[in-house]
Parts: sequence; C-alpha cells; structure tokens
Amino acid sequence: MHKDMHKHLDKVHQIKTEKNMTCNELVNQMDKSGVMGAGTIAKAADIMEHMIKDRKCTVFLGLAGAMVPGGQKQIIIDMLKDGWVDVIVTTGANLTHDLVEALGYHHYQGTHMISDEELNKIRVDRIYDAFMPDKVYEGLEKFCKKTFALMPKEKMNIKEFLWHLGKEVPYENSILKICADKKIPIFCPALSDSGIGLQVWSYMQENKIDVSAFDDLKDMIDITWTSETNGVLYIGGGVPKNYIQQALQFAPTAASYAIQITTDTPESGGSSGAELREGISWGKLDKKAKYVNVTCDATIALPLLSAAIKERLEKYKNQK
Amino acid sequence: MHKDMHKHLDKVHQIKTEKNMTCNELVNQMDKSGVMGAGTIAKAADIMEHMIKDRKCTVFLGLAGAMVPGGQKQIIIDMLKDGWVDVIVTTGANLTHDLVEALGYHHYQGTHMISDEELNKIRVDRIYDAFMPDKVYEGLEKFCKKTFALMPKEKMNIKEFLWHLGKEVPYENSILKICADKKIPIFCPALSDSGIGLQVWSYMQENKIDVSAFDDLKDMIDITWTSETNGVLYIGGGVPKNYIQQALQFAPTAASYAIQITTDTPESGGSSGAELREGISWGKLDKKAKYVNVTCDATIALPLLSAAIKERLEKYKNQK
Amino acid sequence: MHKDMHKHLDKVHQIKTEKNMTCNELVNQMDKSGVMGAGTIAKAADIMEHMIKDRKCTVFLGLAGAMVPGGQKQIIIDMLKDGWVDVIVTTGANLTHDLVEALGYHHYQGTHMISDEELNKIRVDRIYDAFMPDKVYEGLEKFCKKTFALMPKEKMNIKEFLWHLGKEVPYENSILKICADKKIPIFCPALSDSGIGLQVWSYMQENKIDVSAFDDLKDMIDITWTSETNGVLYIGGGVPKNYIQQALQFAPTAASYAIQITTDTPESGGSSGAELREGISWGKLDKKAKYVNVTCDATIALPLLSAAIKERLEKYKNQK
Amino acid sequence: MHKDMHKHLDKVHQIKTEKNMTCNELVNQMDKSGVMGAGTIAKAADIMEHMIKDRKCTVFLGLAGAMVPGGQKQIIIDMLKDGWVDVIVTTGANLTHDLVEALGYHHYQGTHMISDEELNKIRVDRIYDAFMPDKVYEGLEKFCKKTFALMPKEKMNIKEFLWHLGKEVPYENSILKICADKKIPIFCPALSDSGIGLQVWSYMQENKIDVSAFDDLKDMIDITWTSETNGVLYIGGGVPKNYIQQALQFAPTAASYAIQITTDTPESGGSSGAELREGISWGKLDKKAKYVNVTCDATIALPLLSAAIKERLEKYKNQK
Repeated sequence: MHKDMHKHLDKVHQIKTEKNMTCNELVNQMDKSGVMGAGTIAKAADIMEHMIKDRKCTVFLGLAGAMVPGGQKQIIIDMLKDGWVDVIVTTGANLTHDLVEALGYHHYQGTHMISDEELNKIRVDRIYDAFMPDKVYEGLEKFCKKTFALMPKEKMNIKEFLWHLGKEVPYENSILKICADKKIPIFCPALSDSGIGLQVWSYMQENKIDVSAFDDLKDMIDITWTSETNGVLYIGGGVPKNYIQQALQFAPTAASYAIQITTDTPESGGSSGAELREGISWGKLDKKAKYVNVTCDATIALPLLSAAIKERLEKYKNQK
Repeated sequence: MHKDMHKHLDKVHQIKTEKNMTCNELVNQMDKSGVMGAGTIAKAADIMEHMIKDRKCTVFLGLAGAMVPGGQKQIIIDMLKDGWVDVIVTTGANLTHDLVEALGYHHYQGTHMISDEELNKIRVDRIYDAFMPDKVYEGLEKFCKKTFALMPKEKMNIKEFLWHLGKEVPYENSILKICADKKIPIFCPALSDSGIGLQVWSYMQENKIDVSAFDDLKDMIDITWTSETNGVLYIGGGVPKNYIQQALQFAPTAASYAIQITTDTPESGGSSGAELREGISWGKLDKKAKYVNVTCDATIALPLLSAAIKERLEKYKNQK
Repeated sequence: MHKDMHKHLDKVHQIKTEKNMTCNELVNQMDKSGVMGAGTIAKAADIMEHMIKDRKCTVFLGLAGAMVPGGQKQIIIDMLKDGWVDVIVTTGANLTHDLVEALGYHHYQGTHMISDEELNKIRVDRIYDAFMPDKVYEGLEKFCKKTFALMPKEKMNIKEFLWHLGKEVPYENSILKICADKKIPIFCPALSDSGIGLQVWSYMQENKIDVSAFDDLKDMIDITWTSETNGVLYIGGGVPKNYIQQALQFAPTAASYAIQITTDTPESGGSSGAELREGISWGKLDKKAKYVNVTCDATIALPLLSAAIKERLEKYKNQK
Repeated sequence: MHKDMHKHLDKVHQIKTEKNMTCNELVNQMDKSGVMGAGTIAKAADIMEHMIKDRKCTVFLGLAGAMVPGGQKQIIIDMLKDGWVDVIVTTGANLTHDLVEALGYHHYQGTHMISDEELNKIRVDRIYDAFMPDKVYEGLEKFCKKTFALMPKEKMNIKEFLWHLGKEVPYENSILKICADKKIPIFCPALSDSGIGLQVWSYMQENKIDVSAFDDLKDMIDITWTSETNGVLYIGGGVPKNYIQQALQFAPTAASYAIQITTDTPESGGSSGAELREGISWGKLDKKAKYVNVTCDATIALPLLSAAIKERLEKYKNQK
C-alpha cells in the first residue's frame, strides 16, 4: 500500500439532515458518509437499484423472520408487484401470517413486557411485541379445508401447492395471492413447519393430498441454471437464505449482486449470520459481485430502502 | 413485595475456581452465583438433569447451526446413545456434514481472516473458521446414488428416508447411523435445503424416489400427543426449534422442561431469538415449566453442560 | 385481562412506502405498524419530539461510540445548535475525532477487510471501516500545546477545561466549539482516556495544568437537582450513559423521557446494554416516564430520527 | 494457496466429554476441535498460560461490566493474588460493588422478569437479574466519610486515592484491598462515574480532597514504557480497554499477547466491540502477537478459563 493511499479514498462526509428530506435524500447522505451501519444502508440501496435495473438479472428474495406481524407485508407485496423480485423463498410462518391477514384477521400492537400466562388464558399468541388472537386458527382451518378440497389429486410440488392455495385467497393484498396471480415462483422448503403445514396434516387425516418434499428443487435449480445474471436479497437467514445459496452453488453463474439484512453475527458459525463473502469460497457469490452485509433490524432497514428505491426508480423512469 | 424480600433470595456467591475442579464442580459454582450468563448455565444443567431423569419425559432436541464443523457431533451422538434425547429435529446441513465425516472426509481448522476468492480457487468451502474440501461432494454423490437405489420405491416420509440412509452409513460414530440403528425418530422438515437434498434432486433426474413433504407431521404429532411429559433442548433456532414448538402447541401437554442455547436476540421478532416464555402464550410451554434461555455460543455451552451432566448421572447411578 | 383485550389495541398496519416520501412520513408509517424495531423508531421520534417541545425539560445527551468517524457529527451539532439538547456527556474519543476534523484532517471511507499490518506500515489507523491518518496526532499536539498554554493556571474542572479548549477551536462546525460558544455544559468524565487526554499528559511533563477528577460532579448534579423535568437520549452506553443515570439517581426528579439507541443487549448484565426500565428500580427513570429502547446501529437510527424531528418541529413552528 | 493446503491444517476433532473431566481437560478438547466459540476459548487459555508464564510480560487486565454482581469477584482476586495480572484498569462500578460486599452487604439472585416499579418501592436496585438493596449507600457513605478524612490533603492521582481507600477496607477478599496491600497499580479513569465518585462529591461539599484527572496517565504510561513485553486481557470494553490500548499505542512495545472477552460486535464501529486486530493498525497490538477475540458472556468464559489455567500452572509448578 502506498503511504498516501487514504488520500485516494473518499472522505467521510458528515451526514446532514434537512427538515423535509425524502428517504432517498437521507440514503444519499449516508452514501456520502460511507461507513459503518449508515454506509451499508447506502451500499444496499445502490446494489438494489442496480439489480432491479439490470434486465438480465433474476432477483431472489429470501424471507425469514416475522415480517408480516412486523409490518413489512406491503413492502414485500410492492416488491413483487413492481417486479423488483423474480423469485421468493420464504418460511411457512410468513405465509401463514399473510394468509391470516388475508382472511380478515389482524395482528395487534402489544408488548413483550407482559405475562405470557395471562395471554394464554385469554388465548392471545405473542410474537415479541405483536399479538395474534389464537382463534385465527379457526378461520385458517375453514379456509384450508375448503381450498385443499379443490386441489388436484395428483402429486404436486410445494410451489404448485402454494399457487393453488394463493389462487383462492379472498384478498388482493397478499403475498400468496400475488405470487399465484403473477405466477411468481414461490418456494417454501419447510412449509410443513408452519400453521399451513399443520392444516395439511389435519386434512390428510381423512383426505389425500400428495406434495413432494424434493420436487421444487428442479424448478429452483432450473431458474438459477437458465438465468444470465443472479441477484439475491436475504432478509434474515434460515432456510430461505440457504436454499437460494445452494441453488447458486452449482449454477453456472454465481450471484453478481447480494444484500443481506440481519442482526445475526458470524462468530457462532451458522449460515444465518455468515457474512456474504463466505459464499465466494463455495461458488455461491461471484468474486466480482457487488455485495453488502447490513447488520440491522429488517423492520427498520427495509422500509428505508424501499422508499429510497421507489424514488430512484421513478427518477429513472422519468429520465427515459 | 415485602421490603425485605431480597433477604429471602439466595445471595450471589462469588464463583471460586480450583485447580483440578471438574466441569460439574464449576457448574455447581455457577449455580451458587446464580445470575447472568453463569446462572443460566447452572440452571440449564439443573433442568437437563431433571428431564433426563424424569422417565416419563420425552426429550426433543432441536439442532440448528454448524454443529458438526463446530466439533459438537460426538456430544450429540453421546446424547442419543445414552438416551438423553428421544427425538431429534435438525437442519439438513448438520446431517450432510455428519455424512461427510462418516464417509471419511474431514473438516479443518481454518480461519475467517482469509481471501474467499483464494479458497474458491483451490476448491475449499468455508464455514466461518472451519474449512471443508469441496470434493466431499464427489463422495457424497457416490454414496447417495448407491444408497438411494436400495431404497423402497413406495412413498416415504423424511424420517423413513433418513433411517434408510442412516442404515447404510459405513461408520458407527454418526448421527444418521445411530438414529437409524436405534430407531430414534429423526425429523428434518427442510431436508431438501441441504447437500443431501441436492443429491436426491440429482438422483431424481433419472430415477424415482417418492418422499412426502408433510407425512412426518403425523409421526411428530403422534409423539407429542402420546407422551406424558415433554422436554425440549433447542440448540440454535430456525426450523428445528419451530417444528418442535408447533407440535407442542396443539398437544395435550405443553413442554414441562425447556432449554434454549442461542446467541440470537428477541427484539427483531423472529422465532429463533424469541424467549422461551413467549411459548407460554401459545400453549407450547407449560406455565409451570422449568425453563431457561442460555445466551451463549453453543460450542462453548454445550460441552460444559454435557460434561457436567455426565458426572451428575454417574453419581446418580452409583447412588442407586 | 379481558379475553377481547387485543381488540382495544391498535392493529399492526402494514408499512406503505411511497416514492417521494419524507423521512418523517416513513417514521409515521412505522408508528402505524407500531411493533418490533420499526415501532421503537416511531416511539423514539414521538418521545424526542415531546421532550424537545417540553420547555421545562432539560435534555441530556449521552454520546458513546465512534460517532464522528461514523458520520454523525453534524447531526449532533445541529442538535446542540437548535437547542434540542441542553447537556452533553461524551467519551474523550468523540471529542478527539471532532477536534481532528476541526483542525482540517479527515476520516476516510475504508474497509475492515484489510491487513492491519499493512495499514500500520503506512501509518493509517483503522476504526472498523473508517481510516484516519496517524499524523493527525502531529496537528493535535501542535494545537493542544498552544491552547493549553493559554489556559488559566488555577484548578479547573473538566467542563471548564473543555470550554477553554473549545473556544480556541478554529472551525465553526465542531462539537467542542459550539459547546464553548453557547456555554452548553459538556461533561467527559474519562477525558484522560483519549487523544486529548494524552496531550494533557504530554504537556504536563514540563508545564502545569490542574484539572480535578471529581469537581464536574457538582455542576452535573446541580443541573439535575434544579431542573424541573429531565429527558435523556443515550447513544451507546459506557460512561456517558452511566454518568447521566447516576446524576438522576439521587435527583428529586427522575427522567420523564428516555431514549436509548444501542446494539448492546442486557443479558450479560453490563450498564451499556441494560434496558431503560431497569432505571426505574434505581430511581433514575420515573415510573410514569415515556421511554423506549431502540436496538439499532445509531448511524442508521439517529439520522432517520433527526430528519423526522426536523420536519415535525418545522410544522409545529409554522402552526404557531 | 496450494490446492491441498487444507491437508496441512489440523482436523476439527469432535469434542469428547467425559464424566469426571476437569475444566482443563474440557478446554483441551476444545483445543482439538479448534474452531468457532470453543476454539476461541482454547486459544485464550493457551495465550493466558503463555503470558502468565512469560516472566518478562506485564499483564494488564481491563475490567468492565457487572463483574461483582455477576459472581466473578473471587476469580479477579485470585488473578491478582496469584500474580497473573500486574496492572488493573476498571470501571468505578466494579470497585463500588466490591466495596459494598467488603462492607458486609450482598448482591442477591433476582430476576429480570419483575416490575421495576415494585422494586423501587421496596428500595431494591436491579442489575439485570441481580438485586442490590439500596441501603448499601448508607454503609458506603459512612465508610467513605471516615476513610476520606484519613486521606492526605495534598494532590493525589486516582491510583493513590484508591490505594488509600483500599488500605482501610475491612475485609481481605476485596479487589480494592488486595491492590492496596500488594501495591498493584489500579487505574479507574472514570472513577467519578460511580458510587464511590458520588461519595467524593458529597464529601467535597464540606471538605477538601484533591484528585487529579490526568496524573494517573504518567504512572500508566511509565509502566508500558518500561515493560519489556506486554499482555492484555480485556473483559468487556469501555474505558478500561481503551485506556490500556492508548497507553500501548505510543509505547515502544505493542502488546504481544491479547485476549478479549465480550459479546459486543464490531459493525457499529465502537471501541468496545472492535476486533483486537484493529489494534495492529494503531500500533497497540504487535503484528506478531498471539491474540484472540472470545465472543462470549464473560461470566461463562472467565470461570472456565480460570479453572483451566489453575490446573495448567499447577502442573507446570510440579514439573519444575
């Protein structure tokens, strides 16, 4: 390194906030400071903008964590509607909570400083500081029973199962619905590990429904094999992140863009907290990829990024 | 509260270490101090001892994180062999790494301060500071191809699939093998999300193998429904924790004992970092349960607990 | 609890982002979702707005962490200039970095993925992914030597010392300068633990400078004793947080407003990660206080809050 | 890198626990596994053993966090008594809690799941899940008043002040006492930020006591300048870590051994969570140093290390 190397680096400009500044203007200020958490938000916005605009890029969204009780559902839906995301891999819990709201139930603003015993008595389920009335399971059962009966009897994979389910969802603003309507590939490898999974189990006591545990891999890997460029956005870790990672591992093209938003840390060795660059060793991430680890609560980082990107894309559209 | 309430509480005794003290003696000292991290280790040992000794108790182990590359495999195997654990729910990654070692490969002591690009060139995969030669996939493919061909053609659930696989594992000291040999129920809802899953996908290109995504739920829920008392040990969160939780949610008996070892935190609302007490609201954890959240790297906490419990059980055996 | 209790709670509204939305509009959306990280940001904005508008309230800012290299200096300065904050307690490092920039040096946008040995060779100091040329110490020494010589010979407390120092700072946009100019009480109990402290040590080899370790407590406690209402904003923990807390502990009025922004967690028992409510037991926080723990990187949360509050206060001003 | 590079690395051996294994035997097993959290514990034991045995090495202990309420006091005392540590830098809180116990008061095993308002009513102060009766302040005041009156009237530095205080402590098993008796340099740059500091403030209302804020730096820097080899053990971060770091920064010899035990993480840029290697860029840590970051609750890691080292040193003594 040359001793004056730092002079060729950008200075850390001090973030200047203004009274009516838009979210994108704030993110642009964070880009000027360029370091620590704020710097990662700015870099994530940059990468997100690029991978959305890159018409050859297939964008995979890995979605873990309590995103629907956490108020992030509409943002996800907008991403799907506006074509920011081409493939979604999620936990069953997110789909269950999405379905719960689509059936007219709600999550409530509660608190974690409460007696869980008291909540249990009045049949309210707690998700940190969000509450969900336990009776959502009644509506869930009713809807699922009816919908499962309409499904084809032959073997399906989980994606097909979810598309069938989504088609019947009686509410537009739903992740399941939009994926079904727009035929957006939706993968949920651990669907059996969710409220929806339990409904399938219940239904199978007396009826037949045949869903394969492995068949989705074909669809998933076909996508990574045929796509020219790949981009990933991991919100939380878990199965959704890992499932995308492994599909990229053996694909001809590793990810060229990657964003990870999580509060998990790498030291304990798990996949959820692993830094993105680790994926380079495996061939999951391209060595020339643009990537950034955002260590932040997704319910804070995602809305900020979403608003900033919407503004940027609008400008871009108007420029053309 | 009475103003002298604290006088009825135990004092925080200062931990005294000695030069040849056993792990259990150290944990007993932590019990005397009783607070913060050390206090949770002591409480976890206490609960673990109780749930193992409680003959009516079915103990569920939820296993996430890189436990095999992290050197915890033998501890898990001993737990299974010695009957501490009755049911195991795990990620596919742990089973893949277990199989990798059973086939004669090794994980290596690497470092995270290294160029992942360089590692990629020499085909070494990084798991934080553990390295795995990428060619394990060759051995994996060879073994799986051969073993899958021996499997029954009719529909299986994942547990049955894993027992068939485990039976053929050519090495005694294996999680898969011991579960197969001892017919220990082993659940892996997201098996498709793993190296073993990829082998199934590869095999299915030309062959037939029929594994259901939902059928295991029957076995799992039957266990929670018929067991008199339930105890859980969650190492990490993810699908393994949640899968056990949901099976308990609708069971007649919620968990009476619960230990969670994770570095994840509750604030962001995900299931992995959720405090155990949250489960009381859902009916997953009994309101009178003994439970403790251990916020610690499992590769540190688990060996300490394992050694302490082995000593306690030996004393117990000798007393009888 | 009544079984329909949740119906009286606010629903979790899904956050809706818009293309040109302002930061405050985003925070208002977070207020509507009301839970998890986003909910804490909204609540923090609400409390901050209230404590700034409350004319009887003395607002204490506790400032730890690398706020200047992290691009937050201007936001702090604006808070001081606009009268949002009445008293500041900080680490010596923040003042040193502030002084470094005031003397014409810069921090640079570097990376943590670099050889520290190489950086050492070219004399660049790393602060995570910010770089600082080591030769700032030359300018620091020159300025301090000259300025210390101008100081009174009699005993000072640290606040007075910092005001004297700040007066000579040759740059308007400086925390030290603005505190000196506006006579804003500035406390730095561990000033000896900083680059400025080292300069004092160096100067004292041949000169006399007499600064008391304890005298500031009088000024600090006088403020908490005479203020009608107290509000606190803790950015990071450490000495700044604790110093404010202890001044409130024996004051007639505990804090009525409290915001804490940190990524530290409570389990290990340290003051930095302790939840605010713990302060109620000590009498540091009023039992009826409005308070919120924001678990977030301050370089992300603080700019968002700053922008939102600026917009709110502008509206408020215009309404009047 | 050579493609068979990994073959020259140690394998990850699976940790084998045994029923009566000593803590050191467990740490040796962790050494064999060599990775992740367990690997860092093993490496820390190795470094600690080396720096204690290295007769030329001056060992600095940086002590933050609630170590006395957390049950770690005796371990610290043993370190001081047995000569493992040559210099201690600590927070005022640790010394206050040490004094509180030396005066016959106790900390109690409480819980964090409690109403802080109720605790306040009965005058019990909470430190996470440890409780302290608020009336300790009465005893503290009485002792301090009496002891301060015995102190010399001339100017002292904080170390001298603490030695004077420690001399009068009426209980052998005390950090303050042992430092005073053995003339172990004890630094507490932010002493004013503590219960003891408040007592000085109270005393100074009517009496004179003259303690300099900067004079300790001379003593501290003299030590780092004259010591041949330096080793550091940071428990938590904060002022204690930083104060040692800065004394090393300008010393002729950077630290050759370094251990850091904390749960704080580097991403937000603060000194407390900064990785040790960052110190190499500053010249605080030697580029050839043996060092390790242990990401673990200190109340778990420290007792384990203490017991293991005691066994190792005993063997070493017997060998000679």
